Amino acid sequence: MFTTRLPLRFAHCDPAGIAYYPRYFELCDAVVEDWTAAVLGVDRNTMHGELGMGLPTVDLKAEFTAPSRLGDMLDFTLRIVRIGRSSLDLGIDVTCCGEARFAVRSTVVLIDLANMRAHPWPADFLDLLKKHALADKDPS
Amino acid sequence: MFTTRLPLRFAHCDPAGIAYYPRYFELCDAVVEDWTAAVLGVDRNTMHGELGMGLPTVDLKAEFTAPSRLGDMLDFTLRIVRIGRSSLDLGIDVTCCGEARFAVRSTVVLIDLANMRAHPWPADFLDLLKKHALADKDPS
Amino acid sequence: MFTTRLPLRFAHCDPAGIAYYPRYFELCDAVVEDWTAAVLGVDRNTMHGELGMGLPTVDLKAEFTAPSRLGDMLDFTLRIVRIGRSSLDLGIDVTCCGEARFAVRSTVVLIDLANMRAHPWPADFLDLLKKHALADKDPS
Amino acid sequence: MFTTRLPLRFAHCDPAGIAYYPRYFELCDAVVEDWTAAVLGVDRNTMHGELGMGLPTVDLKAEFTAPSRLGDMLDFTLRIVRIGRSSLDLGIDVTCCGEARFAVRSTVVLIDLANMRAHPWPADFLDLLKKHALADKDPS
Repeated sequence: MFTTRLPLRFAHCDPAGIAYYPRYFELCDAVVEDWTAAVLGVDRNTMHGELGMGLPTVDLKAEFTAPSRLGDMLDFTLRIVRIGRSSLDLGIDVTCCGEARFAVRSTVVLIDLANMRAHPWPADFLDLLKKHALADKDPS
Repeated sequence: MFTTRLPLRFAHCDPAGIAYYPRYFELCDAVVEDWTAAVLGVDRNTMHGELGMGLPTVDLKAEFTAPSRLGDMLDFTLRIVRIGRSSLDLGIDVTCCGEARFAVRSTVVLIDLANMRAHPWPADFLDLLKKHALADKDPS
Repeated sequence: MFTTRLPLRFAHCDPAGIAYYPRYFELCDAVVEDWTAAVLGVDRNTMHGELGMGLPTVDLKAEFTAPSRLGDMLDFTLRIVRIGRSSLDLGIDVTCCGEARFAVRSTVVLIDLANMRAHPWPADFLDLLKKHALADKDPS
Repeated sequence: MFTTRLPLRFAHCDPAGIAYYPRYFELCDAVVEDWTAAVLGVDRNTMHGELGMGLPTVDLKAEFTAPSRLGDMLDFTLRIVRIGRSSLDLGIDVTCCGEARFAVRSTVVLIDLANMRAHPWPADFLDLLKKHALADKDPS
C-alpha cells in the first residue's frame, strides 16, 4: 500500500484551530498526485501535458472521525479498492500517531482532456494498477 | 429553500481550466455560512466567539456530475434533510444555467468548542431548524 | 474608481481567528477579475480562452495595517496607478467600516499565453484603461 | 541559511498551468513555519497555544521573475535580513533547478495574541535569531 506523511500546516487550520475540511481534500489530492507518479510512473504534468489526460474525481465519501490540529503529522494510506474500465475506486485512510482522523473513498475517472470524456485504461496502466491492487489486498 | 449564487473564480480552477474539487467544498462552506446566519440568526463569528460553539462537518458524500468552468455562475440550493439531537443532515445541489454540476450531502454536528463534544440543539435553534425543514419539504 | 465588497469568510481565517494573508491575495485577485470584466469588457475566461492572453502579477507590495476578523465586510477600492506599454500598476485599498486594513500595489502584465511573453495593450484596451485611469484620478 | 524544497502541486496551479501567486505565499508561509521551529525551537502550535504568541506578516514585497509549472521542485532559501525589537525582516529566494522564480521580502512581528500588540523578542529568542542572522551573513 502507498503511504506518505504530510504535516497539517497553519494554512490548513480554521479559527477553531483544527483542520478545515476542504483543505483535507487538497492533502488527499497531493497524496493521489504522488501515488499516480509512483504507481503509473507518470507525473500529473506529463499526464496533462504530453498525454492530454486527466484523472478527475467524480464521486467521494468522507468520514471525519476526530479533529486534527496544527502541527499534527498525518499518515496517509492509499489503496486501490476497485478497477473499472476507465475508473478507479481509491480508499484513503488518514491517521495521526495511530489514531484515526478521517477516511475518504473516491472514484476517479481517466478522461481525455480534449473532449472531457472517459477513456479506457491503456494496457500498460491497467497492468500496473492490477499489480498494485493485488499488493494492496495482500500486503504480506 | 435557501438559494444563493456564487461565481466560479480563477482561484477555484485547476490547470485543466475546470473547478478544482476541494475548492467546491470551500464554496459549499460559504453557503452553509450564509445559511446559518439566515436560518439561525447567528453568524459564524458570534457562534464561535460569543456562544463558544462550532458546526463541523463529520460526514459527507459528493457527486460531481459535470465540470464547471471559470466564470460559471453557480446556483446553490441548500435544504435540511434530517434534524438530529445535535446534528443536521444538509443537502446542497449545485447547478449552472439549470444544468446539474454537483451535489453534496453532509452531516454537521453542533459542538461545544471548549471540549469539542456534541451539544444538543438549544430550543430556539431547534424551533428555527424545524420551521425551515418544513418549508424545505413543502416550498409551495 | 472600482469598488466592491467581499465578506471575510471562515475559509479565509487562521487559527488566530484573523485573516490569513495568502487568502487576502485571493480576494484581491477576485477584485481584479471583476474589475477586468467591468473595465475591459472581457471576462477572464474569454481573455484566457478566446484571446489566448493572461494578466499575471509580476510584482507586488502589500502593507497590512490592522487585522480583519471572520465576518468582516471588506471594501475594496481599485485604481489604475500607471499604464505601461503592456503592463499596469494597480492600487488596491481595503477597509472595513472605514478603517484601513491593508493595501496592495501590484504590477500586472498582459501576456500571450502561447509564448508567455509580454504583449502590448491592444488599442481598444488601451483606450478603456486611459479613460478609467483619468476617472480614477479625478473621480468628481 | 535555512533551505527547504517543496513541490509545486496541482492545487497551486491556475488555468494557465502555472503557479497561482496567492498559493506561493502559502508555500512561503510553510517555509517560515518550518524555519521558526528549526531556529527558535518552537513550533507554531506551541507558539500559539502555550506561549499565546503569533508572528503575523505586516509588510511584504514580492517579485515574480519566471513562472513555475506543475511538478516543479521549488528550492526556498530563507535568511534573516534585519532584527528589530519585536520584528524581523526575512528574505526568501525561490529557485527551480537554479533558475530564479520569485523572491519575497517580508516583515513579521511577534505579537501577544491576547491583545494583538507587538511584543519584544524574549531574550532566548533574540539570542537564537542573532546567531542565525550572523550565520546567514557569513555562511562559510
